Amino acid sequence: MQLSKRITGLTGGGSDGWDVYYRAKQMVADGMDVTQLTIGEHDIGTDRSILDAMYQAALAGHTGYSMFNGNKNLRDAVARRVSERTGVKTTPDNVLVTPGGQSALFATHNAACDQGDTALLIDPYYATYTGTIRGAGAVPIAVEARADRLFQPDPADIAAMANGASSLLINSPNNPTGVVYSGETLQGIARVCQAHGLWLISDEVYDTQVWSGDHLTPRALPEMAAQTLVIGSLSKSHAMTGSRLGWVVGPEEAIYHMGTLATHTTYGIPGFIQEAGCFALAQGEAFEAQVAAPFRRRRDLVLGLLAGQTTVRAIPADGAMYIMLDIRTTGLSGEAFANRLLETHQVAVMPGESFGKAAAGHIRVALTVADERLADAIGHLLSLAGDLPRESR
Amino acid sequence: MQLSKRITGLTGGGSDGWDVYYRAKQMVADGMDVTQLTIGEHDIGTDRSILDAMYQAALAGHTGYSMFNGNKNLRDAVARRVSERTGVKTTPDNVLVTPGGQSALFATHNAACDQGDTALLIDPYYATYTGTIRGAGAVPIAVEARADRLFQPDPADIAAMANGASSLLINSPNNPTGVVYSGETLQGIARVCQAHGLWLISDEVYDTQVWSGDHLTPRALPEMAAQTLVIGSLSKSHAMTGSRLGWVVGPEEAIYHMGTLATHTTYGIPGFIQEAGCFALAQGEAFEAQVAAPFRRRRDLVLGLLAGQTTVRAIPADGAMYIMLDIRTTGLSGEAFANRLLETHQVAVMPGESFGKAAAGHIRVALTVADERLADAIGHLLSLAGDLPRESR
Repeated sequence: MQLSKRITGLTGGGSDGWDVYYRAKQMVADGMDVTQLTIGEHDIGTDRSILDAMYQAALAGHTGYSMFNGNKNLRDAVARRVSERTGVKTTPDNVLVTPGGQSALFATHNAACDQGDTALLIDPYYATYTGTIRGAGAVPIAVEARADRLFQPDPADIAAMANGASSLLINSPNNPTGVVYSGETLQGIARVCQAHGLWLISDEVYDTQVWSGDHLTPRALPEMAAQTLVIGSLSKSHAMTGSRLGWVVGPEEAIYHMGTLATHTTYGIPGFIQEAGCFALAQGEAFEAQVAAPFRRRRDLVLGLLAGQTTVRAIPADGAMYIMLDIRTTGLSGEAFANRLLETHQVAVMPGESFGKAAAGHIRVALTVADERLADAIGHLLSLAGDLPRESR
Repeated sequence: MQLSKRITGLTGGGSDGWDVYYRAKQMVADGMDVTQLTIGEHDIGTDRSILDAMYQAALAGHTGYSMFNGNKNLRDAVARRVSERTGVKTTPDNVLVTPGGQSALFATHNAACDQGDTALLIDPYYATYTGTIRGAGAVPIAVEARADRLFQPDPADIAAMANGASSLLINSPNNPTGVVYSGETLQGIARVCQAHGLWLISDEVYDTQVWSGDHLTPRALPEMAAQTLVIGSLSKSHAMTGSRLGWVVGPEEAIYHMGTLATHTTYGIPGFIQEAGCFALAQGEAFEAQVAAPFRRRRDLVLGLLAGQTTVRAIPADGAMYIMLDIRTTGLSGEAFANRLLETHQVAVMPGESFGKAAAGHIRVALTVADERLADAIGHLLSLAGDLPRESR
């Protein structure tokens, strides 16, 4: 029986650089001791107090169908949070609750793009982005944020690809690079979106993990609230990855229609999870800072360990749970380096090639293991990098 | 800013007969005492033992990312259940776990249909069906199951529309009619699907609520496992509507690609909910029979109350949580009757017109309130129906 071209073509085919990830998983399954610096997930679980709130909500009867677009109290809480943090007036009618940020990525591209439309994104990009765009029937076109610009996208490069496009997807703080887009970068992006009538889809799920200054959202730039769809989530900010609770913030009409899409694709999110989300958001900034703290500390730890050498160069990481390392002096590709590191030192990192083309010759280190183990892994990485130039040059 | 045609056109526009439902909700919000026989949701919540299992799973650490296509233990449990109940060999590779049956409906249509493809469905149909098909970029074409055939679809009617179509969506036990498709009906449907190369998408979420004989699945018919995608869920069978836990059972290749779609649209289901699902499935048939029992009892109660009159005729309801009543002798449409019933007797039912065209002149009664209140509501309904012919004929 024939399957649709859309579903069989989602991943675009070819090697995607994730082999090293699956190799590492297999090695662990085979009983080997592998340090996994691959996936963006906290080394803590969801806080007990949030799980207790979820259980209490379930016992209190929140086990039936909930509002398809999110319960009013949660949409209120998100709207208040966004208003306070960004200064942009935001009401519950600007908020759609989704089962996780991934579902929000899909909904926003469905709202912005029809079949065959061009959807721009920035390379390097999070692994699901291109498939999500294809799932919405659109055509992903990547604009490279170049390593020599430290992965800040150049608005002129975006403008060169923007004619006839429907949307642009950005992500700051960025996965995989850890880079935070500057005010200048965001202003330039906003100008391109306005000049070309693009929806700006801004994935801001790392907005509580910014190591200098405040998080900047392009929705707060002049006139941009009308054409920006912001994706948020409790996954990273509250260590609730498994609860699948996210949202879209955007203009009322777009939110309304995405709510209709939600009715026909997911039909709501568990009420007990929404109540747990309300509880989590009410814990305030100190709680969120506590969840974020290890990543900043470990970022600094890695920078300290790199200080004594020049083979491996760190991309300035001002946010998120990652640090991107430039290993081009070793003469190896990111993929070859990552495979070698896994084989010889049992340390798993993601090749830059897993995230598009722009980060070739780099590796992404997820700062998601205990400090001592991380330091040990970086030691192995530097040892391998130090040995390599002699043999591979 | 322009939104996509797909998202703005999801509902097809026009009145959909749901006004009476929203009127009833508003009356309740205004403090009125309305008996709501509208939505297919149990009058019990999710069982405490299942909520406890969920909480224990969360405390045990199931709070991180889970497998995007469903955890192995849950896919094992579903595969065993389906093998045992249907006699069709089913492995975990035939099972995709989804965040609810609605998400499974969307995934299956994405797998079967490309942009612009024809997706057949049977009228009367569950409210989201047409929008879900449009969401997948396909064109819904309804085939009427006629009232004079007691809402059993005629395979010849389907065959007449099947040229060039990609899929056919059926639902037995049926929402909204309560009708269970006969073996003969299902065999005829299977023959049409084979002759025309259609994917048969079989929504079987009411499979534990069958009042005579066993549940029949078309996947068990000769050669049909290769072209049938079965949708299941714990919502109705285990009173877990709010937990959003469902699945698709189908051929390995289709399941594989729908798993890729899941990665790009929802990225997995909470692990603690999947563990609760495993617990629920392990409770066995007695538990499921207990959840189903009130609907059969209330079906019989309604039939008993109708016995003394001929104005309102019941469609034989052999399953699900509903009974469909033919009120055409009153001379009113289902919509007019439902509105009158709400206004004069504060009883809310769904007009047959909410579910397509085939059930015009009917009303759907959800058997979802306590027996005494249901009996009282049926009394009001019969009283209105008994009075009406004199004034409207």
